[in-house]
Amino acid sequence: MDNESTHEYQSLLTVLHECMVACNTCYQACLQEDDVQKMTECIRLDRECADFCSYFEQAISRGTAYVSELATTCITICKDCGNECKQHNHDHCQKCAEACLKCAEECQKLLA
Amino acid sequence: MDNESTHEYQSLLTVLHECMVACNTCYQACLQEDDVQKMTECIRLDRECADFCSYFEQAISRGTAYVSELATTCITICKDCGNECKQHNHDHCQKCAEACLKCAEECQKLLA
Amino acid sequence: MDNESTHEYQSLLTVLHECMVACNTCYQACLQEDDVQKMTECIRLDRECADFCSYFEQAISRGTAYVSELATTCITICKDCGNECKQHNHDHCQKCAEACLKCAEECQKLLA
Amino acid sequence: MDNESTHEYQSLLTVLHECMVACNTCYQACLQEDDVQKMTECIRLDRECADFCSYFEQAISRGTAYVSELATTCITICKDCGNECKQHNHDHCQKCAEACLKCAEECQKLLA
Repeated sequence: MDNESTHEYQSLLTVLHECMVACNTCYQACLQEDDVQKMTECIRLDRECADFCSYFEQAISRGTAYVSELATTCITICKDCGNECKQHNHDHCQKCAEACLKCAEECQKLLA
Repeated sequence: MDNESTHEYQSLLTVLHECMVACNTCYQACLQEDDVQKMTECIRLDRECADFCSYFEQAISRGTAYVSELATTCITICKDCGNECKQHNHDHCQKCAEACLKCAEECQKLLA
Repeated sequence: MDNESTHEYQSLLTVLHECMVACNTCYQACLQEDDVQKMTECIRLDRECADFCSYFEQAISRGTAYVSELATTCITICKDCGNECKQHNHDHCQKCAEACLKCAEECQKLLA
Repeated sequence: MDNESTHEYQSLLTVLHECMVACNTCYQACLQEDDVQKMTECIRLDRECADFCSYFEQAISRGTAYVSELATTCITICKDCGNECKQHNHDHCQKCAEACLKCAEECQKLLA
């Protein structure tokens, strides 16, 4: 990968960043919900997905040669997190689900 | 910090993300320059600054209570990286310097 | 810092690694406790402390010039996490408190 | 994964940590070598491998459900970094190669 990578992957970089922010926003909001007992899987997956997207963002911008491998794992994690979030009515969960599924889609386009 | 944190810190989040991307873009470009021997301090500081901005981005979006402490260190690192980059004529260095100094400024506003 | 840094900071590197593992072990265990409602502050601080120690570990081993700044923040975060964990009887919380306070102490020695 | 994960994966956690430290030690030493021009691929892979091992360490200790996916990518990155390092006579490169290949092996045992 040459130093054009940040141009080539501009839309993925944006979507990964938005997904990371949405997951972490959902994470901190879940920890403040009255029904936190029901949100533990959401909390775990929010951190998992935020951490992976943050890692992947950095890796792309420093020119990683492993975009395909990372995108494949990213799809799995984003789908799992998005599907968990979709089941909860909290606004932050719905927004997070949307961001995760958009991110999974963008990774899939890349691999196509 | 409540779950409004990502709104409150929206502009800082954006600037940190841009600084991380600029530093990593500069990092990979420096490693491909003919005069890489002269760029080693730039390479080291690019990674340092990218890693810190990436960490800080995540910390803010998950609602860290340590924004001031992290912003203080961020200013130091961004200034050091920006001042090193400013000395090199490469386009990626000049762009990186600009992003670093903008990020330092945004952190300073926060602490004011 | 020259490439002797990993020797100079060997004991800090070990303690940071142990603290990161203890915090993350406590984090995942808290999310599985029946009284998760009472553990939310512990969960938040566990992640905060694990993330910071992980960052600091990496920074030291790549030769960061910002050991003092990072150690200062590390002391604050480790103490906050350790003091929260100390209040809970769960075995993982007690072990985590011990690891956090040991890490804070090691950072303090460094700054002395 | 339950909270026994850090016991189950104890040897992998240790090996990942050692690999991260070896890669970062090699990274900072390479940047100080007279023949830095010849070490640029080594520098890039050192950071790549250190960043991934650091991520994977954290993910395991917080109980990730994606151990297999991450181990698969870890094998690829560790082998690439180890094979690059093996070609250089610098002591830090030889040590790094050893740590990388040990880490790849440990991941392979896990997947077997």
